[in-house]
Amino acid sequence: MVAQIKETPAATDWSKGAAIVEDAVVPVAEARLPLTDWGFTRSDVTYDVVHVWKGAFFRLEDHLDRFLASVGGLRLELPMDRAALREALTALVRRTGLRDAYVSMICTRGSPAPGMPRHPRHCVNRFYAYAVPFVWVIPEDVQARGAHAIVARTPRIAPESVDPTIKNFHWGDLTRALFEASDAGADTAILLDGHDHVTEGPGFNVFAVIDGTVISPDRGALEGITRKSVLELCQELGVPARVRPLHVEELRAADEIFTATTAGGVMPVARLDGRILGNDRPGPISMRLRQRYWEKHDEGWHATPIPYD
Amino acid sequence: MVAQIKETPAATDWSKGAAIVEDAVVPVAEARLPLTDWGFTRSDVTYDVVHVWKGAFFRLEDHLDRFLASVGGLRLELPMDRAALREALTALVRRTGLRDAYVSMICTRGSPAPGMPRHPRHCVNRFYAYAVPFVWVIPEDVQARGAHAIVARTPRIAPESVDPTIKNFHWGDLTRALFEASDAGADTAILLDGHDHVTEGPGFNVFAVIDGTVISPDRGALEGITRKSVLELCQELGVPARVRPLHVEELRAADEIFTATTAGGVMPVARLDGRILGNDRPGPISMRLRQRYWEKHDEGWHATPIPYD
Repeated sequence: MVAQIKETPAATDWSKGAAIVEDAVVPVAEARLPLTDWGFTRSDVTYDVVHVWKGAFFRLEDHLDRFLASVGGLRLELPMDRAALREALTALVRRTGLRDAYVSMICTRGSPAPGMPRHPRHCVNRFYAYAVPFVWVIPEDVQARGAHAIVARTPRIAPESVDPTIKNFHWGDLTRALFEASDAGADTAILLDGHDHVTEGPGFNVFAVIDGTVISPDRGALEGITRKSVLELCQELGVPARVRPLHVEELRAADEIFTATTAGGVMPVARLDGRILGNDRPGPISMRLRQRYWEKHDEGWHATPIPYD
Repeated sequence: MVAQIKETPAATDWSKGAAIVEDAVVPVAEARLPLTDWGFTRSDVTYDVVHVWKGAFFRLEDHLDRFLASVGGLRLELPMDRAALREALTALVRRTGLRDAYVSMICTRGSPAPGMPRHPRHCVNRFYAYAVPFVWVIPEDVQARGAHAIVARTPRIAPESVDPTIKNFHWGDLTRALFEASDAGADTAILLDGHDHVTEGPGFNVFAVIDGTVISPDRGALEGITRKSVLELCQELGVPARVRPLHVEELRAADEIFTATTAGGVMPVARLDGRILGNDRPGPISMRLRQRYWEKHDEGWHATPIPYD
């Protein structure tokens, strides 16, 4: 059973986060996995991240849905059911006392069972989780001015090779794109597929606002839960929205560009490859969506309150 | 300084392997890395594996060359120089006393330095290593009959996205291919690029013998050190060899197929997609190469003896 508390000193400082490792809860700084876990040595792992805002999970059930679908998609078996998973994550956040946090749940392939052939189907899968304080992954000053993005030369790993709808740690292309961005003096990067269509960036979905319509790619990208929230907000605000192929030339000609991620919500882009979008500030539709995204958090939108001690 | 020995009980059993973790040598079963290391959460890591046979490293300097090139290729910095790396790996094997072993060296991105932006260039990179007993990754009975392989439907991750010559843990496509193989009752899989050319398999280079010539793909694959050994053996044995594009139809029509990997050397294939090659046994050129590969080990070929206590 997960989420039983290992003996820890009474003075343990949980404010930097806590983790579930081998059925014990430990401070996040002590959380480790075996060097020989295939989750590391083959990146044979899936995960999901849900955020906690003002003491409540946001869209917890959506994240559990996607995580369990990813686990199944990789033919992994989570060593607990959905109810136990929900309970473990809740206990983890309670233990930290954090009111604003990221909560990561992870299922690794583990290692071959003793005496069994070295094949992924003979491995004992493992569950890990950790909760850490919420940080703005894009610094707040960058959010205020709007991010400077580039279109990366590195193409996104093709969906035929690694399915991007199964959340994964195959970030080699994204890391390369981040170096391209910093080499060009930009904040981040947007990756294309092999056919000049937009996919996603390092940790976020991409949106273009074209003639008043919000457009996000329909393939080659994670089916983001923040993207889903953005589409709901568009409906509420009466902004037309479509999920469809997005050519890079449409992106370049867009009136506005923004990104969406659990790690920070709606993040406007002010420049693409050095070209200024609009007035070099976050665009008006991006800003309305961003504002509404956080306002609705305060209204209890998709919130699962955490019963702190 | 790496490779200093942490206090461990005198009775520690090193026979299952040892690891270098945070400048200490520990039993491999205790070797762990932080859950938050980007080497795990972004698979932002490179590695190499050298084998030890009868008390000597095989082609140690070639593996060090490739590892250091991979480290540079990912813009990582190894926290030690080449001499210290060589010394650390040697000390590690001595500690285990193992005469036949695999020795893995790993450099991870680590985590952002305190107070620095969350960008790979601001991370403190980490070094890990472990030495474990040599095992036949393909069971010896399978080697004797020749492996049954399939051509996977899953294509290899494209080199434009993740450079396969930089040894990496992006195994999502290879894992998917291994499941395709086991679902089909086969032992392993060979992956194509997006244009029907052969790349590599899970952990090995691929060779076809066509009209007496040994052919191995020139792109989309790791520049294998065992491949290099095979090419040297071909020269010694007077077998013509070429590294060039290899179309899947050439592979299907080949007289022999074999694979090469540090994890076991030359491994013949007896069937491809159920089709029997030759007489359903390892082919004659494959077997000559395999035999010579191990014979030459006994002759001290590319050997760096380990000064055991």
